[in-house]
Amino acid sequence: MMEDYDSTLSYYQTLIENRLSELVQKREPNNLYSPIEYILLDGGKRIRPLLCMLACEATGGDPFESVDAAVAVEIMHNFTLVHDDIMDNSPLRRGKTTIHLKWDLPTAILSGDAMVGLALEVLASYSNYTNFGKIIEQFAYGYIEVCEGQALDMLFNNRKDVTTDDYFHMVRKKTSAVIQTSLVLGGLCAGAIEDDLENLKEFGLNLGIAFQLQDDYLDLKATDMKLGKRIGNDILEKKKTLMVLMAFERAKLEKDKSLLERLYSPGEIPQELIPEFVELFERLDVFNDVQETINSYFEKASNALDNLSRNQGTKMLKYLLDKINVRSY
Amino acid sequence: MMEDYDSTLSYYQTLIENRLSELVQKREPNNLYSPIEYILLDGGKRIRPLLCMLACEATGGDPFESVDAAVAVEIMHNFTLVHDDIMDNSPLRRGKTTIHLKWDLPTAILSGDAMVGLALEVLASYSNYTNFGKIIEQFAYGYIEVCEGQALDMLFNNRKDVTTDDYFHMVRKKTSAVIQTSLVLGGLCAGAIEDDLENLKEFGLNLGIAFQLQDDYLDLKATDMKLGKRIGNDILEKKKTLMVLMAFERAKLEKDKSLLERLYSPGEIPQELIPEFVELFERLDVFNDVQETINSYFEKASNALDNLSRNQGTKMLKYLLDKINVRSY
Repeated sequence: MMEDYDSTLSYYQTLIENRLSELVQKREPNNLYSPIEYILLDGGKRIRPLLCMLACEATGGDPFESVDAAVAVEIMHNFTLVHDDIMDNSPLRRGKTTIHLKWDLPTAILSGDAMVGLALEVLASYSNYTNFGKIIEQFAYGYIEVCEGQALDMLFNNRKDVTTDDYFHMVRKKTSAVIQTSLVLGGLCAGAIEDDLENLKEFGLNLGIAFQLQDDYLDLKATDMKLGKRIGNDILEKKKTLMVLMAFERAKLEKDKSLLERLYSPGEIPQELIPEFVELFERLDVFNDVQETINSYFEKASNALDNLSRNQGTKMLKYLLDKINVRSY
Repeated sequence: MMEDYDSTLSYYQTLIENRLSELVQKREPNNLYSPIEYILLDGGKRIRPLLCMLACEATGGDPFESVDAAVAVEIMHNFTLVHDDIMDNSPLRRGKTTIHLKWDLPTAILSGDAMVGLALEVLASYSNYTNFGKIIEQFAYGYIEVCEGQALDMLFNNRKDVTTDDYFHMVRKKTSAVIQTSLVLGGLCAGAIEDDLENLKEFGLNLGIAFQLQDDYLDLKATDMKLGKRIGNDILEKKKTLMVLMAFERAKLEKDKSLLERLYSPGEIPQELIPEFVELFERLDVFNDVQETINSYFEKASNALDNLSRNQGTKMLKYLLDKINVRSY
């Protein structure tokens, strides 16, 4: 049965890949679309578009009808990666040089911008759906939320008074909103009832938080090299992750405090300090507690699925959730 | 009668300003929305949103119904300004420091991004219109065109074989497409017939070209200081304007050629050279010929209006066209 799910997921993924290729093919000018192909046709786990198709299936729709919505959200997600990588000055994404470094800054800004247009264009294939208005509203909502989330993330990097509540507020916007949008668009393609849409939102909210916390955790604890970016990247970029905030609350020793202070002070953090942060987070039990928090959000996400019909789509959402839960990169 | 038109235009403009203020008010976080307020609530001639409202009126609609569409296009236009200013590294916009210099690069990228979301959000107020699909399609089309136009513009700056045809192709995308989108959205709000939409497109295509050529011309020939940017900015940024392309075709003297070569070579162009370019363009009759070309496009635009019903909206479109024709900044 599990194998069946894997082959179905991989079939859905093929449909997504094909539609993405088709969309960016034969477009001009090349200086705009080459970077888009580079980021868009090069892997990624395709979790968001799969969630979209599965949500469509789970709420009684034909998953194939939701491919365009799935692709629209994947493009929006990749747009945020291109622009975030500029803002964070990240050198690598999925193991490859980021666009602003491989090309240049103007190219990275503009190809990110154009991706939003492509996402809208592909969404417009639902223009004759009676709930097309809701589709656009949800897309606009998710889009604005992710911008606000990124702004909060930037704001937090310069502030010392960020609480764990602030952090969760930011993650809801930065990560959950796009995942919720994937799911709701899938539901809207199926013409889902309001209750089901609410359950999908609840599922996405909690999955998004779990996913982001896991991302932060794996930044230091990824067990293999598939991560595709530097280990400790968030530390080097002085991100105020939940782990940092918890460590900051717990640190009592002067040397621990002064290590953490470096995340709030000007100047680069040398790569050699990463193991010291890891040691500190171990010692303050931060890793264990964050892992527990992650599990609790995965559980909430799972509970939200229990309110949907127990069909194949719902079962596969649960299966995908479990796969995400145990990911190691 | 002319005075009546001016007061109507200024009334429409007030509605646009009010809606824009309302839209960006009370939004958080501040680091995202302050720059948006800065660019969006600070003047601009509001030509595109006025065109939208007048197109609505000209095709039999209630212009007040098109305020949201007008505002959406104005926001999209301002988004392109924010990102273009980064790409061109422009220090000034409408006489004020550009966002990436007043704040920083990440803030300018992200607030530009968020503006696209606001534009979509406000467009979604037409979600119950039967032609909402067409509204989104037109918006996506205009948005993609303007990105492609900017990419071509960037491409041309590094190429020596740009023809005047290439230039017009770029301007259609970079400038005409957004103006056409303003007009078509106004028409769609009115439920305009297909013929009228085509006439609006034709009007917008030619107005856009005229407007861009005029912009390029005024970059060197603005007669007052309201331009809000450096005189000769395009030369300093090595833009391949129609004037540059024409001069390049016509220059025979070695010293003229070598002056023009500087636009195709690395290294900064010193401000002191601007008068030399002006003198060259005068001597090669470039200014006169470009002025004639501008007039011919204004005439084509005017002719397209003759195919619309002769109501107050159409008359005001003609009036606004004439006002744009004689602008001096």
